[in-house]
Amino acid sequence: MDTRSRPRAALLATLLPLLAITAALAAEPAPTYPDADASDPAKLGWMVGSPPPPDRILRFDDGSYFRFPAMRWSVSNFRQLMPTVNVSRGLAAPTPLPRAMRDDIDDVVFQPLGSNRTMTWQDSLKANYTDGIVVLHKGRIVYERYFGVLGPQGQHGAMSVTKSFIGTLAAMLAADGTLDPSRKVAEYVPELATSAFGDATVRQLMDMTTGIRFSEDYADPNADVWAHAAAGNPLPKPKDYAGPRSYYEFLQTVRPEGRHGTAFHYRTANTDALGWVLARASGKTVAQLLSDRIWSRLGAEQDAYMTVDSTGTPFAGGGLNTGLRDLARFGEMIRNNGVFNGRRILPAAAVADIRRGGDPADFAQAGYTLLAGWTYRDMWWITHNAHGAFAARGVHGQAIYIDPKAEMVIARFASHPVASNAANDPTSLPAYHALALHLMKSR
Amino acid sequence: MDTRSRPRAALLATLLPLLAITAALAAEPAPTYPDADASDPAKLGWMVGSPPPPDRILRFDDGSYFRFPAMRWSVSNFRQLMPTVNVSRGLAAPTPLPRAMRDDIDDVVFQPLGSNRTMTWQDSLKANYTDGIVVLHKGRIVYERYFGVLGPQGQHGAMSVTKSFIGTLAAMLAADGTLDPSRKVAEYVPELATSAFGDATVRQLMDMTTGIRFSEDYADPNADVWAHAAAGNPLPKPKDYAGPRSYYEFLQTVRPEGRHGTAFHYRTANTDALGWVLARASGKTVAQLLSDRIWSRLGAEQDAYMTVDSTGTPFAGGGLNTGLRDLARFGEMIRNNGVFNGRRILPAAAVADIRRGGDPADFAQAGYTLLAGWTYRDMWWITHNAHGAFAARGVHGQAIYIDPKAEMVIARFASHPVASNAANDPTSLPAYHALALHLMKSR
Repeated sequence: MDTRSRPRAALLATLLPLLAITAALAAEPAPTYPDADASDPAKLGWMVGSPPPPDRILRFDDGSYFRFPAMRWSVSNFRQLMPTVNVSRGLAAPTPLPRAMRDDIDDVVFQPLGSNRTMTWQDSLKANYTDGIVVLHKGRIVYERYFGVLGPQGQHGAMSVTKSFIGTLAAMLAADGTLDPSRKVAEYVPELATSAFGDATVRQLMDMTTGIRFSEDYADPNADVWAHAAAGNPLPKPKDYAGPRSYYEFLQTVRPEGRHGTAFHYRTANTDALGWVLARASGKTVAQLLSDRIWSRLGAEQDAYMTVDSTGTPFAGGGLNTGLRDLARFGEMIRNNGVFNGRRILPAAAVADIRRGGDPADFAQAGYTLLAGWTYRDMWWITHNAHGAFAARGVHGQAIYIDPKAEMVIARFASHPVASNAANDPTSLPAYHALALHLMKSR
Repeated sequence: MDTRSRPRAALLATLLPLLAITAALAAEPAPTYPDADASDPAKLGWMVGSPPPPDRILRFDDGSYFRFPAMRWSVSNFRQLMPTVNVSRGLAAPTPLPRAMRDDIDDVVFQPLGSNRTMTWQDSLKANYTDGIVVLHKGRIVYERYFGVLGPQGQHGAMSVTKSFIGTLAAMLAADGTLDPSRKVAEYVPELATSAFGDATVRQLMDMTTGIRFSEDYADPNADVWAHAAAGNPLPKPKDYAGPRSYYEFLQTVRPEGRHGTAFHYRTANTDALGWVLARASGKTVAQLLSDRIWSRLGAEQDAYMTVDSTGTPFAGGGLNTGLRDLARFGEMIRNNGVFNGRRILPAAAVADIRRGGDPADFAQAGYTLLAGWTYRDMWWITHNAHGAFAARGVHGQAIYIDPKAEMVIARFASHPVASNAANDPTSLPAYHALALHLMKSR
């Protein structure tokens, strides 16, 4: 491969999945995309056949795998495209998730944000390009659907939902004394001393209130987001490549912008830096830590996995892939303040720290018009609504939505064509809340 | 990456794992290697640290991952180096393997082939660079050891043990009528009509008695084995690369040499071609087929996985990676003529076909001095000894050894520095047989 001669569009496409994760704020003209049925990856037959037809083969290196609608296949098959590391479930029997399926959920009606018409729950799933969704009520599966190429046995990219796992691990290590959030990042990772992260506290990383320069201007070939993606790309670097060669090398190049602790800025580099801090505090990669501390104790029914860069570093900012029901198990454990299937997995203090939320004034400065009153804490999104709901959110509509008052957990994988939650929130957030009210009524 | 300018040694090293699988007959001067303790991958600390020290980082593209002793880490971590496809175990609880551990096995004594001294079982494990070994007697684990970076939760490259899985699937599809071994290969795969495989029968593929040119002369840069490895390499091809770009494209270039059905020649390309036939006969890739027909019905405790080429084709000739106990479960199912845990998984006829063995005259022509009297059938090695033992064999000492008379199954992963079973057979085969006799005595 010689990327110098490769069309720029292809190069950009190669980097897209890493970028998409941080694209939530990018303002782009809205193109028209084929709808959920027309873009169904099973119907389109990607990578089917021995060999697949040439126009149905998706590759990592030419970027074809992440163009819409091909991306809808790739999010369920990242491991076939790039190197990954296992997050073991252990070897014991999975913890059963009891089932109490309901047939009244598809008809739940809600009003999408910014709309004066109503929509049914069932219709929202296609509007959101849902690949799979599980709803738990009081710990039982009451609803479960799969679309396209995802099934109960598949593993789907969680993308930025990964961040909430990393934030949870940080809260866990903070609660048990392994990690001191008040210490400076450079105390854990001396290599970051001269970067913008060096004099931030670990707490500021956990809440993304660092003052770092991490531009996401896709029109600018020198934007930091390209450098981040290129550094983490596991393919061999082009011969004339002179930039950072791994996530860790990239983090050392991040420059300051503004002051730490004054505003929330959603920047993936913070999670990668937090992953490095966790690795140094625990002596384990975040993949090992996630397996040892959570995944292997949760009774997951599938191993999870993380994508890795060329030095074996898991992509903390967005590289986790899991089964859908296992995502729901994790959410249910969080809803139960750290206990699942009678076993304490997280210290209660860790979940309390998440649910407490962040500083509303810090959050307000980020300008999320659809998320008024929300905050960000431990890499979770806290609604501060009347139900105390909070969420993990991925850029193409992946989500864990926990509503404590309704005793409801929603786990969703999706592959919305627009790399921004602003595109799927209008038909997601009010649907989640309407379902919560419905479940509370009908208990 | 521009392979034109890369030192040839590095290029060759990149291709090594694919090559090693077919290297059993290569005659090379015997270099001196560090012993099992000195080459212990855990002690050497490959890929440990955040980031690992530069001289402990292993990469696929520069070939560093497969130089000895680094290779001892890589065989337990292929998925961190290249794209892979999952072989799902399903979602149910694993089938328990009962345990009846014995402490008398380490002291079993045997005489290595070609030696006039004795060796203990325990010492054989280090002589063989064993990474993990499980012995089942009457279906119970009586012995289990792990070394280096492998543990019960790990997945290790099975290399050519993969071939026996593919042969078993073929025997299975033949037994249930999905596949007709008497038909010509080109009837299933028209694209192979003009290759050497086209007018061979499927049975000749299954028993590797095709007459195909597949040279393994490492000194010859035009040897077929290099083209095979380059075609299957999942990395982007160099710009000036004009060869086949996938396993399937490579197979179409294989030319005839000799006549079909007259001699056994151990050539990996046969298994890749058989994998293609199975895909066409079943409509599934061998990875899907293995999951659907065997792995998900065996109660495996871990998913397995296969490496893939750039078109998503699993490497049928050597790409399978499994947990050690799951390899033992598979072996125990075969020992029980297709039944495991009370469930029929293979038709009895399929196992009978394997155990019947191949044509001794065909086998004799291959000149395996250590394997006098053996045959090859359905991609299994049949000893035809008094116990009716038969085996799956991988090039660095991976093995499933089934001794029906002793009711014993041995599953072993290893990373012997010499890419030839001739290097580890002298301390393996007599050890297995001595253990069989010991277990029979002490029942």
